[in-house]
Amino acid sequence: MSDHTVSSSSSFQRPSGRTPGQLREVSLELGYTRYAEGSVLIRQGHTHVLCNASVLDQVPPFLKGQGSGWVTAEYGMLPRSTHTRSSREAARGKQSGRTQEIQRLIGRSLRAVFDLDTLGERTIQIDCDVLQADGGTRCASITGAWVAAALAVRGLVDNGVLARSPLLDHVAAVSVGLYQQHPVLDLDYVEDSGCGADINVVMTGAGQFVELQGTAEGQNFGRTDLNRALDLAEQGITQLVAMQKQALEQ
Amino acid sequence: MSDHTVSSSSSFQRPSGRTPGQLREVSLELGYTRYAEGSVLIRQGHTHVLCNASVLDQVPPFLKGQGSGWVTAEYGMLPRSTHTRSSREAARGKQSGRTQEIQRLIGRSLRAVFDLDTLGERTIQIDCDVLQADGGTRCASITGAWVAAALAVRGLVDNGVLARSPLLDHVAAVSVGLYQQHPVLDLDYVEDSGCGADINVVMTGAGQFVELQGTAEGQNFGRTDLNRALDLAEQGITQLVAMQKQALEQ
Amino acid sequence: MSDHTVSSSSSFQRPSGRTPGQLREVSLELGYTRYAEGSVLIRQGHTHVLCNASVLDQVPPFLKGQGSGWVTAEYGMLPRSTHTRSSREAARGKQSGRTQEIQRLIGRSLRAVFDLDTLGERTIQIDCDVLQADGGTRCASITGAWVAAALAVRGLVDNGVLARSPLLDHVAAVSVGLYQQHPVLDLDYVEDSGCGADINVVMTGAGQFVELQGTAEGQNFGRTDLNRALDLAEQGITQLVAMQKQALEQ
Amino acid sequence: MSDHTVSSSSSFQRPSGRTPGQLREVSLELGYTRYAEGSVLIRQGHTHVLCNASVLDQVPPFLKGQGSGWVTAEYGMLPRSTHTRSSREAARGKQSGRTQEIQRLIGRSLRAVFDLDTLGERTIQIDCDVLQADGGTRCASITGAWVAAALAVRGLVDNGVLARSPLLDHVAAVSVGLYQQHPVLDLDYVEDSGCGADINVVMTGAGQFVELQGTAEGQNFGRTDLNRALDLAEQGITQLVAMQKQALEQ
Amino acid sequence: MSDHTVSSSSSFQRPSGRTPGQLREVSLELGYTRYAEGSVLIRQGHTHVLCNASVLDQVPPFLKGQGSGWVTAEYGMLPRSTHTRSSREAARGKQSGRTQEIQRLIGRSLRAVFDLDTLGERTIQIDCDVLQADGGTRCASITGAWVAAALAVRGLVDNGVLARSPLLDHVAAVSVGLYQQHPVLDLDYVEDSGCGADINVVMTGAGQFVELQGTAEGQNFGRTDLNRALDLAEQGITQLVAMQKQALEQ
Amino acid sequence: MSDHTVSSSSSFQRPSGRTPGQLREVSLELGYTRYAEGSVLIRQGHTHVLCNASVLDQVPPFLKGQGSGWVTAEYGMLPRSTHTRSSREAARGKQSGRTQEIQRLIGRSLRAVFDLDTLGERTIQIDCDVLQADGGTRCASITGAWVAAALAVRGLVDNGVLARSPLLDHVAAVSVGLYQQHPVLDLDYVEDSGCGADINVVMTGAGQFVELQGTAEGQNFGRTDLNRALDLAEQGITQLVAMQKQALEQ
Repeated sequence: MSDHTVSSSSSFQRPSGRTPGQLREVSLELGYTRYAEGSVLIRQGHTHVLCNASVLDQVPPFLKGQGSGWVTAEYGMLPRSTHTRSSREAARGKQSGRTQEIQRLIGRSLRAVFDLDTLGERTIQIDCDVLQADGGTRCASITGAWVAAALAVRGLVDNGVLARSPLLDHVAAVSVGLYQQHPVLDLDYVEDSGCGADINVVMTGAGQFVELQGTAEGQNFGRTDLNRALDLAEQGITQLVAMQKQALEQ
Repeated sequence: MSDHTVSSSSSFQRPSGRTPGQLREVSLELGYTRYAEGSVLIRQGHTHVLCNASVLDQVPPFLKGQGSGWVTAEYGMLPRSTHTRSSREAARGKQSGRTQEIQRLIGRSLRAVFDLDTLGERTIQIDCDVLQADGGTRCASITGAWVAAALAVRGLVDNGVLARSPLLDHVAAVSVGLYQQHPVLDLDYVEDSGCGADINVVMTGAGQFVELQGTAEGQNFGRTDLNRALDLAEQGITQLVAMQKQALEQ
Repeated sequence: MSDHTVSSSSSFQRPSGRTPGQLREVSLELGYTRYAEGSVLIRQGHTHVLCNASVLDQVPPFLKGQGSGWVTAEYGMLPRSTHTRSSREAARGKQSGRTQEIQRLIGRSLRAVFDLDTLGERTIQIDCDVLQADGGTRCASITGAWVAAALAVRGLVDNGVLARSPLLDHVAAVSVGLYQQHPVLDLDYVEDSGCGADINVVMTGAGQFVELQGTAEGQNFGRTDLNRALDLAEQGITQLVAMQKQALEQ
Repeated sequence: MSDHTVSSSSSFQRPSGRTPGQLREVSLELGYTRYAEGSVLIRQGHTHVLCNASVLDQVPPFLKGQGSGWVTAEYGMLPRSTHTRSSREAARGKQSGRTQEIQRLIGRSLRAVFDLDTLGERTIQIDCDVLQADGGTRCASITGAWVAAALAVRGLVDNGVLARSPLLDHVAAVSVGLYQQHPVLDLDYVEDSGCGADINVVMTGAGQFVELQGTAEGQNFGRTDLNRALDLAEQGITQLVAMQKQALEQ
Repeated sequence: MSDHTVSSSSSFQRPSGRTPGQLREVSLELGYTRYAEGSVLIRQGHTHVLCNASVLDQVPPFLKGQGSGWVTAEYGMLPRSTHTRSSREAARGKQSGRTQEIQRLIGRSLRAVFDLDTLGERTIQIDCDVLQADGGTRCASITGAWVAAALAVRGLVDNGVLARSPLLDHVAAVSVGLYQQHPVLDLDYVEDSGCGADINVVMTGAGQFVELQGTAEGQNFGRTDLNRALDLAEQGITQLVAMQKQALEQ
Repeated sequence: MSDHTVSSSSSFQRPSGRTPGQLREVSLELGYTRYAEGSVLIRQGHTHVLCNASVLDQVPPFLKGQGSGWVTAEYGMLPRSTHTRSSREAARGKQSGRTQEIQRLIGRSLRAVFDLDTLGERTIQIDCDVLQADGGTRCASITGAWVAAALAVRGLVDNGVLARSPLLDHVAAVSVGLYQQHPVLDLDYVEDSGCGADINVVMTGAGQFVELQGTAEGQNFGRTDLNRALDLAEQGITQLVAMQKQALEQ
């Protein structure tokens, strides 16, 4: 991958040494596991998420018999994906509020670019499992999940199950933060911990918002801050969408 | 309450008959229950949320012995607060992902305007219970919860437990949506169901963002849409903060 | 409400200042919420319980296809309905034994005055949620739930869904206790805590027992005590049934 | 065991062939298991309950450091103790409302005859497990649990752990029902299913009520019915207490 | 029961005083409870397990409509079956890993000697409940469960539900251990605690292995040890199968 | 890796085309994730398991203050590690019996070669997460977990936390089966499904048994079969231990 840098005149220094608008190194490894209809390992810096898409011949009860399909996601972190070990959700007996929040977000983001009628009465079930976490796992999950879903969809079209793709557009996500008042793109864990505000942006290939989740963390922020941060996010997502395209073309 | 109308030249008609920038009728009934340190029933149109603030002489384990306090929230809907009955979360044995998402949001929003060191080693525990739901329950919960917390804090100051208030500012929330491409303020249930995008905005009295959660629902949205919606949200929150002030002064 | 006093020659003094056979002030506010088929807020002194009745077009599995209906109830206390905050059952992940005991009692009490065949294959689902608790919440729930159920039934008859009412009689409940050996009616929290025995009585409008639950609390009791307490309970329930009638006639 | 019959002039016939006031055959087998501090198998007709009392050197958190003891109980039915198999509560992952109701009742009944200060900071934990169920399991559990607890207490006194017994009196329980309007004592499963009302009575050796739980099942009942049923219950409990005494004297 | 001794020239002494190849006293009490289709109390020394077999007219979902039957088991220990009280699994809300491991083992062991097609679309559900535990409960459960299942099967054949028995062979189980390097048969609790290795062996009447579970506990073991232990196990199981036959012939 | 073949004169053909005593291709990738104190990805054919070892400065309650350490394991399969998607245990809210069985096995196997006193009051917590499953996941987990634990231990020694290694020996595991009566080593999923018996063998580097779990699946087996299978297992484990050594030496 050549150059994800966005030029910046600022003398201010990010902990990661990246320029404010610079993404981490991103790679998309297709076919990482053998059995899923679509399997992608996305690496964004030290954040590694395995995204598997399964095609299931069933839909949730509320959709039965309506000819429409469904796209949904589950998310998990391996206990030792992080700097210190977290307890295993399966052993604790429930998913945390954070986990549920993230998997609902991934599902909504994917559905925003799916024509569920064209998909027909089947479910694309996405599993995003974080093997290694260095910040930005929810955004990396969305970017990777889209590629896994696209692979699964391609299989359905290639096998003649679907006459045409139900995918309407790309979707990708990135975080932006305010670090010492400066907007910065694609926070790693250290930067995230030090940021006054954290904004996760999910956009389509056409540059429309799908989701926008901004949280002040220690420092509330104004309209100007928001606008500068969204400018960076748009640039980052444009790059991520380009990488998704490139990965699928190989 | 006199007039929450914001003038609009649009010929377009909302289902509620309100102008695009018009809040629903809002009332804050203080002391709705007797035992909580702060108790407020907020009515925003047909959405009624009982917000109780309790002062607990303990903090979560991760804060023990650090001299700092905590503010947190729980949220629930009565099973028949809605048009059709939902199952009771206590009977099902777990809180839904939506419930957890909302109560985490309320907690973060309140903490954004609290000086936790000044609060000292105690917890302000907020309970937001929806008695009747007609859309916008999470935003009404935040607006009401702030008043309940302010009452609890006033008690601590009046009783000499705290030398000064740990409250740094107001916080209030409102939803904005894109209804047939038009930005509209404070969606009720019917409007919310018909909206292409739904944005919940949490702001301080000083007009800074605390949280911003935008979700495309059927229709992705661009920067211009976002900006017009945020303009309405700012106006609405300014009115809500004024009502909070007025309620506490009585 | 005029006068709930039952004369007493005793010089003994209740903590509440009421005479031994005097009910607390009771009010029944119909239509407290908009969406339930029957909605009643019962206030009995400082005990406030919201009773909502929902009509569901389904019955439990064991009744399917038998033409018979069902009446059942769920009960909950808001976390800060009490003097000190209790943990939220939905967050803890299960209903306490006490909660289950009470909701089973409410369900049995209502079914005792319902002709389930006349109700047909549908369920009247009662939700009793305690907004404020000052003793006697299970009894107030039953008295209020009957009114909520009666409103729901009235709707079914008025809409022509049912040819005639499946309600066979009123049902209401009250507690009696032995306070310093004296039988007293309708205990509030302070009286309940100081009582040597606590008896909850559920009776029909015809004055028959539906449920009788007496528990010695610190002081076992004999047949004479029981009989004097039941005399008071009968008088109290006669008054409560009269209030139910009056409320429905308005 | 010689004769539990209470004479009756009625020409009416119980399904069991017993006279209205006749208990089922009762036996108390002490030391049924080897490890518990008190172990009793109570057989009341075909109802067999294993009651084990354990002495634990701890008390619940709310009693810590107060020098007072605790008595509590748990109850369970083996899945195939009944005519048809019930699911195993441990496998379902929770105790039913009925189970919790019963074990709370057993605990309260025992505590009514215990001087918890004399017991000191330890817990008598009762386990009542139904090996075979033919009606009346909760009452048989209480009658048997008292004997198990008495054995455990005797051990504490014999070993010099306690200077004197914390047991203030006997406690025993029996059911009475209204079968075709006639009061009958000690219902078996067939009789219970056919009864219009079911009253469980818990009394001390001194003939005082500890608990009284009457439930109309299909037929509400009046004061006269109640009084006739309580007369039978008193007679039955007198016999059960005599058997408890006899069993401990052997 | 005459003599289960297997001669041994060793001067080494077991804690139990038994010879290395000597089983504990074993008894099989048929019809221990009245309602189960097959009910057996197996006593092996101080280990007592109640094994009930229920015939259910249903099969698990994965077998529906295939004409094949199922055999499965559940296992539990009464809280005070052991030297010190264990917590009740139903109260804790889940079965331990050990419990699940054992009940899966019992089910597999029984299925190994069942012709499920001959059984037809019904389930033999085994419940093994340990009333008293002194080591070897899983093995005693298997040995007893086979007899309970055989009784249930006999009933199905006697009633003409089945034309012939689906039982292909006996199955029984026993533990062997290495105690101070010596192989010993049928460990009780004290011996088990002191053993360097614990091997549970499940065999058919024909002397074939069904399950073999060896665990080093403090001392790893070699092929020679294994072979000497298996020799003892074979001898023990031969005796247990003979007792099963004798019990069914009475 | 050169050659794991064990010569075989049999004309019989395995589905995998391997000789009866031939292991699948095995690789051990050390440092697969960055944060764990020991991290290994073991690939055994298409079975891929990520084994992470964490060093925790705490021990379970039963070991507190005794100066001894603990080694334990948790196991999980990613939902789409298999041919068809399995439900996520964290979402279902509990670990299956199979999962618990396996993680208990891994823990016991590791502890068999650890001197827990030398480890001191800390825990080596192993997480085995199956990324891709083609049979033999529990055995691969053990073989990989030992290497992860060895890396973690090496760190403790290198950092001077431990004066010497608490590891007493290697431990590794492999499955053997009876395929059409022939013993075969290291079953893949297709072979496992077709096998009449499945035996998992865990051995030390010194060739002693740690665990032996044989299960007849459709076909019971005799002593001769067992012995031939164990011969293969020993050869396989000798190879696996050599690979562990080689991996650590690099």
